[in-house]
Amino acid sequence: MSKSLQDNRQWNGWGDKEKSLALTPDGATFITETLGSVKPLPVATLDEVLAKVPESRLDESELYTLDTEVRLRHARGQSLPDWLAMKSGEFNLFPDAVAFPRSSEDIRILMAEAKAKGWQLIPYGGGTSVVGHITPCVGDKPVLTVSMSKMNRLIDIDRIDQIATFGAGVKGPFLESQLQAQGFTLGHFPQSFELSTLGGWVVTRSSGQQSLGYGRIENLFAGGEIETFEGKVDIPTLPASSAGPDWRQLVLGSEGHLGILTEVKVRVSRLPEEEYFGVAFMPNWEQGIACAREAIQQGLPLSMLRVSNSVETRTQLYLSATQTQRHWLAKLLSLKGVSDDKCMLVYGITGDKQANKQSYKRLKAVISQFKGVNTGQRLGKKWAHKRFAFPYLRETLWQMGYAIDTLETATNWSNIAPLTQKIEQSLREGLAECDTADDSKSKVHVFSHLSHLYSDGASIYTTYLFPVSDSYDETYTRWQKLKSTTSMLIVESNGTISHQHGVGSDHAAYLIEEKGERVVNSLQSYFRSFDPEGQLNPGKLFKAIPTETIQKLTKPDQ
Amino acid sequence: MSKSLQDNRQWNGWGDKEKSLALTPDGATFITETLGSVKPLPVATLDEVLAKVPESRLDESELYTLDTEVRLRHARGQSLPDWLAMKSGEFNLFPDAVAFPRSSEDIRILMAEAKAKGWQLIPYGGGTSVVGHITPCVGDKPVLTVSMSKMNRLIDIDRIDQIATFGAGVKGPFLESQLQAQGFTLGHFPQSFELSTLGGWVVTRSSGQQSLGYGRIENLFAGGEIETFEGKVDIPTLPASSAGPDWRQLVLGSEGHLGILTEVKVRVSRLPEEEYFGVAFMPNWEQGIACAREAIQQGLPLSMLRVSNSVETRTQLYLSATQTQRHWLAKLLSLKGVSDDKCMLVYGITGDKQANKQSYKRLKAVISQFKGVNTGQRLGKKWAHKRFAFPYLRETLWQMGYAIDTLETATNWSNIAPLTQKIEQSLREGLAECDTADDSKSKVHVFSHLSHLYSDGASIYTTYLFPVSDSYDETYTRWQKLKSTTSMLIVESNGTISHQHGVGSDHAAYLIEEKGERVVNSLQSYFRSFDPEGQLNPGKLFKAIPTETIQKLTKPDQ
Repeated sequence: MSKSLQDNRQWNGWGDKEKSLALTPDGATFITETLGSVKPLPVATLDEVLAKVPESRLDESELYTLDTEVRLRHARGQSLPDWLAMKSGEFNLFPDAVAFPRSSEDIRILMAEAKAKGWQLIPYGGGTSVVGHITPCVGDKPVLTVSMSKMNRLIDIDRIDQIATFGAGVKGPFLESQLQAQGFTLGHFPQSFELSTLGGWVVTRSSGQQSLGYGRIENLFAGGEIETFEGKVDIPTLPASSAGPDWRQLVLGSEGHLGILTEVKVRVSRLPEEEYFGVAFMPNWEQGIACAREAIQQGLPLSMLRVSNSVETRTQLYLSATQTQRHWLAKLLSLKGVSDDKCMLVYGITGDKQANKQSYKRLKAVISQFKGVNTGQRLGKKWAHKRFAFPYLRETLWQMGYAIDTLETATNWSNIAPLTQKIEQSLREGLAECDTADDSKSKVHVFSHLSHLYSDGASIYTTYLFPVSDSYDETYTRWQKLKSTTSMLIVESNGTISHQHGVGSDHAAYLIEEKGERVVNSLQSYFRSFDPEGQLNPGKLFKAIPTETIQKLTKPDQ
Repeated sequence: MSKSLQDNRQWNGWGDKEKSLALTPDGATFITETLGSVKPLPVATLDEVLAKVPESRLDESELYTLDTEVRLRHARGQSLPDWLAMKSGEFNLFPDAVAFPRSSEDIRILMAEAKAKGWQLIPYGGGTSVVGHITPCVGDKPVLTVSMSKMNRLIDIDRIDQIATFGAGVKGPFLESQLQAQGFTLGHFPQSFELSTLGGWVVTRSSGQQSLGYGRIENLFAGGEIETFEGKVDIPTLPASSAGPDWRQLVLGSEGHLGILTEVKVRVSRLPEEEYFGVAFMPNWEQGIACAREAIQQGLPLSMLRVSNSVETRTQLYLSATQTQRHWLAKLLSLKGVSDDKCMLVYGITGDKQANKQSYKRLKAVISQFKGVNTGQRLGKKWAHKRFAFPYLRETLWQMGYAIDTLETATNWSNIAPLTQKIEQSLREGLAECDTADDSKSKVHVFSHLSHLYSDGASIYTTYLFPVSDSYDETYTRWQKLKSTTSMLIVESNGTISHQHGVGSDHAAYLIEEKGERVVNSLQSYFRSFDPEGQLNPGKLFKAIPTETIQKLTKPDQ
């Protein structure tokens, strides 16, 4: 039953197995010329991996399935370590069972069992985490993964309050189609939109591509219900309150530590009268940043603004445009003074037609002020068409022998250019010491864009590609080197360890540098008061800290 | 030294003692006809109260002053119980000393002393709390009130990041004049603006009149520094983050329980090209609510929208317009079909001139859609001129024998009309059982407006006036009856116990109904982990709960 639903899902990579994103011939040449030709690593077959799944430590039960393939399919997310595990077949970690609850009552029963028997409990949404949110943790406790996939109904739309209630396991497309059929939208479009779930968006503090217009999930999450080890907690849908700390803010980013979010109430908007995306080219990265900052600080009512740096722009054009198209674009832009360092700026305009006209006029003025060239909606349509397709490129590149991953952060405007430069340099030079024998293998192709803008800063989203090594182990080691060095650099340079992906296990080590030890320990203790034995998604968000430290922190009078 | 600075401050009431707000003769008649003539209660003199201030339980020290008048002037806020205490002279509670630190270093020293010696510590901003935030708590611990009045400097404006850093004790006018001189504004204008402080706004989750445009303090508070019993905690100014729960959200609404906020960094906006306020009249309350909801859910970019119900509208017109003005307004409106039930709607339009034009046009269309009559800017200017003056009316009415207080909440749109009706009825009939002998004394004049709007709901701000009784005690008893019955009704009817005033001591009893016992206890335990002995502003935000309960909650393994 549960298997058939997942049949279209790639078992060892991203997304729908029927879908793919091919490179243009030019794109393939560009990548190969940039990173050298590489021999891909061998990929394990499903049968090989199935044979390696160990016996479950749990007994048969009606509450969950012990089916080997189901366990395998819920063992890993989409982080690079997850990806290497899936491709090599060395999963190592599997849940002992997977439950598919259909109601809050089912979840209460599962939680009571888990609590009584000391199991680890991992809430599972779309399985799209890129930072290890749903990967089981090493340990002697049996692991029960709770898939929310059956709790995906639209429960209610209140047209007066503009609040919609969904089962937390609802995925992006189903959520939007239900809302749009009734004239509303949530407007939350993370790149993982096709697969990720509303509950996952909330507990990881996700952000959609159009957060500039619709707000981050913090703004959209109105309330709902969460099942804890001590029973259900109702989160009221107050539009605003000054009655002490806002508890919703502790659910947001809790990453499973409070319990399982079952129903989520969200603030929806009416469908806009008009929405379109357009593209401009700025003469260079500095002007691109300045243009974005000016637009936002002027308070221009856009729904999106992204600026790619010149390497990202060049890469994108190679990957998605033909030589003729690139030629004519270059010609057009150079006539207007924008040439080799050009930076692509993608904007979204959403709302009332008359207001949109005004916004568009003002945006064009800002683009001109910073010597950019607006090319209008043609390329914007192309962007919108492919907005959720980029993750499929990972497979295409993998088959060519390249690993691809991303790092993202947010920081204040004055730190944007320096921090981007540091991040890119750290990645680009991060493998320089490896492979002195084979220089080609130390190459890393790095590019960035600003994806989410705020009055006081922006997010930086950096993509990096590097050739796989001769073995999975060595590839992992190289990734780890790039990831750890650059992550530490980010938090030491006033960036957040994550603007939109969350903490999971991969970022847990950096949280203390960002928030300070006292704050991190206090938050961990807070969650422990809901989960005394640390059974809820252990090893995520926080590094394991010794039990005696927790006890000390939570016993105020000693 | 500290005394001279406060010389202009009313010692037993609101604001600047040179300022007042007189009633028009018609206004006075209206109130008297509505509530009957009353004999005011006698008001204690400053000398009488000074004679009652008990000896301090603290020794002389350079760290603070024991001056009797200074202690008296920091003993009470502006809640109705505070007001009755100040007018009767029965303060009962005084801080034992008041400190005026000039630096974070000073605060560290004060906190170390307080911690070592077991004092209560009350952070004091503008002393404008209307819910008992700064009133000392009964108990055997000496009370040190820490006035932030000397830590009020503009420390930095970062023009690139649009972040300004202030000492937490800065008051509204000084903050805005400093920012506006440099082309920026915070845009945070609570009614207490003239006296309240930035630090106070943050720790009580305050909201300004134009939060629709500029955001609540949650949106404006970027970071800063807080001194805790365990040292300083830096709160980084990240524009956004998905790295676990956002700790700023635990500072917001902490009401002194974490420590003392010393430096506050805020997100500022550029001064708008144009700003104006206008007034329209809607035919009745239902149409007023519907118009406000439509404007907000359409996403109209206004900086303010308030709608008074018909009693508030009538009262306002009596209090502020002449008979001739009222006559002509009534004539004009009735020609357009708006008559006795008319509801005043005040709007604020802020921004780029061209965009404003568009917003104004759209707003007028919405007003027409709901059969309202827009009268333009004339009355809007009048509103803006008096926007911070209303609290001075309390003194004027007091001298006539009337007590005035407010209750405020927020709830979802579908609950706005029913909840307003319940609140008003509860207040209007709340004294019906008292004074059967003297029926006039059971009258309560009640009116409401929506002051802050959100896509999913609005705040309801209800004002009530009632005649004082023959004694202060009886007046207090009557107030308590109105307050407690109506507060419980609010939280039982899906309203928050406070949209903008905070919890303090007056609302602490209702928090559990709103957030649930588990959540409230967990938050209290959280703060206790920063303040094991409960020395920081005790009795505020949370009801005192038995120490053994706290211990149980914070010892996860028992």
